[in-house]
Amino acid sequence: MSLTEKIISGDKRLIARAISAVESARPDAIELLKEIFPHTGKALVIGITGAPGAGKSTLVDRLAAHYRSLDEKVGIIAVDPSSPFTGGAILGDRIRMQNMACDPGIFIRSMAARGHLGGLARATVDAVAILDAAGYNKVLVETVGVGQDEVDIVKAADVTVVVLVPGMGDDIQAIKAGIMEIGDVFTINKADREGVLRTERELESLLSISERRDGWKPPIVKTVATEDGGIDELAEAIRDYAAFSDSTRKPGDDRRASVAEYRIIEMLRDRLLKLALDRGVTGEELRDMARSVAERRRDPYSVVDEIISRLGINGQ
Amino acid sequence: MSLTEKIISGDKRLIARAISAVESARPDAIELLKEIFPHTGKALVIGITGAPGAGKSTLVDRLAAHYRSLDEKVGIIAVDPSSPFTGGAILGDRIRMQNMACDPGIFIRSMAARGHLGGLARATVDAVAILDAAGYNKVLVETVGVGQDEVDIVKAADVTVVVLVPGMGDDIQAIKAGIMEIGDVFTINKADREGVLRTERELESLLSISERRDGWKPPIVKTVATEDGGIDELAEAIRDYAAFSDSTRKPGDDRRASVAEYRIIEMLRDRLLKLALDRGVTGEELRDMARSVAERRRDPYSVVDEIISRLGINGQ
Repeated sequence: MSLTEKIISGDKRLIARAISAVESARPDAIELLKEIFPHTGKALVIGITGAPGAGKSTLVDRLAAHYRSLDEKVGIIAVDPSSPFTGGAILGDRIRMQNMACDPGIFIRSMAARGHLGGLARATVDAVAILDAAGYNKVLVETVGVGQDEVDIVKAADVTVVVLVPGMGDDIQAIKAGIMEIGDVFTINKADREGVLRTERELESLLSISERRDGWKPPIVKTVATEDGGIDELAEAIRDYAAFSDSTRKPGDDRRASVAEYRIIEMLRDRLLKLALDRGVTGEELRDMARSVAERRRDPYSVVDEIISRLGINGQ
Repeated sequence: MSLTEKIISGDKRLIARAISAVESARPDAIELLKEIFPHTGKALVIGITGAPGAGKSTLVDRLAAHYRSLDEKVGIIAVDPSSPFTGGAILGDRIRMQNMACDPGIFIRSMAARGHLGGLARATVDAVAILDAAGYNKVLVETVGVGQDEVDIVKAADVTVVVLVPGMGDDIQAIKAGIMEIGDVFTINKADREGVLRTERELESLLSISERRDGWKPPIVKTVATEDGGIDELAEAIRDYAAFSDSTRKPGDDRRASVAEYRIIEMLRDRLLKLALDRGVTGEELRDMARSVAERRRDPYSVVDEIISRLGINGQ
């Protein structure tokens, strides 16, 4: 059996290895992704985003348990805030991973930006493709909903769930505005807390002033994830939107095509940078250049000009 | 007077225009940045980050007022969560801008990611360079402290202030861990609230287990920004770290050189993508390619191969 065949047959160890390969942008990962591509497009990819403290992890866990009870295979990708100097990833709840790892129908993985060549958004989309090809029916992608990277990740999902909680701080307005447009389904989690009605009313009025081009009215579902409250309703809302989106999809579909365009551009960006760092400049030269910029002996703009000119790009 | 001279003389209208040029990555912006580069390096760049709801905007405003009372010119760059589909920026408090805009010693500007060519981190660093050259003594860069882009932005500052508040949600632990390492000064804002002692103790214990390579012990300052409480102490802590950092700086300084290297790589990434989109593929072709990927007639990896091969990069 080839590596691709083993992944398609659901070999967890090889799936994990393949995700590591896309994460570190290894050249063999591209060949693998080309091979599995025809086997993708079957999973429903659900992006789940919201401010820190909204209880996303618990919600994702309960939603996964719901899908498992329907005998569906579930992949979970938790996109973690990264530690910029060490590149380490943090999973809020490691116990969670241990519990879930015992279930053969669940694959859970955390992803974090790793240094300059990060490409977190690109790597996450590639990891989703691997889980999709491996037969996971639902792929849940969980991100903290702030930062361009994470918005980009969520944009690539089939259904996006935005998680809010009652009575958050002053900046919530700004976050809301940033993620309002990407929410296909809204959840007010911790709905047993004070202020839930006010948050619901605020959200309704925000939603009422924004008209979506596809005509979809995003539902608001109240959940208490820690007690499994509202999870069935959330799953139903997700199913409703997926069905709506399927039924209104035309050939040359706008959203899918713009997601594909975005992916091409992200991949292009990563690949070009890698080429430049492989062929335009050595690590030692780059460090020297950086030192000369730090000491103001050179400006960074002409350094970049020099590296690009070495690549001999057509017409340059 | 040349454009560069006008910017150096502090012409606000032209400063604003120059920042717009770097934001949309206009080719003339690069020439301008090369010209102003020798005039940069004088400002103290202060990055201020923290979770949504921590009261960063108010803190930044009060800190700006403090510096104004010492007759220093202050630039403020508020990095906003962006609206992914419309590219619009939101400033939490527009009134704030109106009040401050009347003071000739303050320049305030919001920045947001704009579409594919975003490069928010790169654009923000360039905007800081413009304000620096224009004679702003302090440049305050305010971001919501989650997401790689924003961590990157903060890394480029001379001093980084991490803002916390008493009793935040469950995910705070994860955020803390992500931004702990970048904080030179910690502030517990809204310090008149319940739970301040617990947050302080937690923070102290987190700080006590992490040893910085430079030997600096990040101080914790308690503030009540809405009442101007603790602002002098915060300014003092910032000054202390800046002095410490100056006194321990050696030729070939690690932090400055790694910031410079990061800038070069970010600029390289943006410039290469722009070149590829200018010369490797037309907008129409790209849309066709994206459509064929969306309809699964082609895989995105070979599309990227094709665009790159058209650039005729050396050795490709």
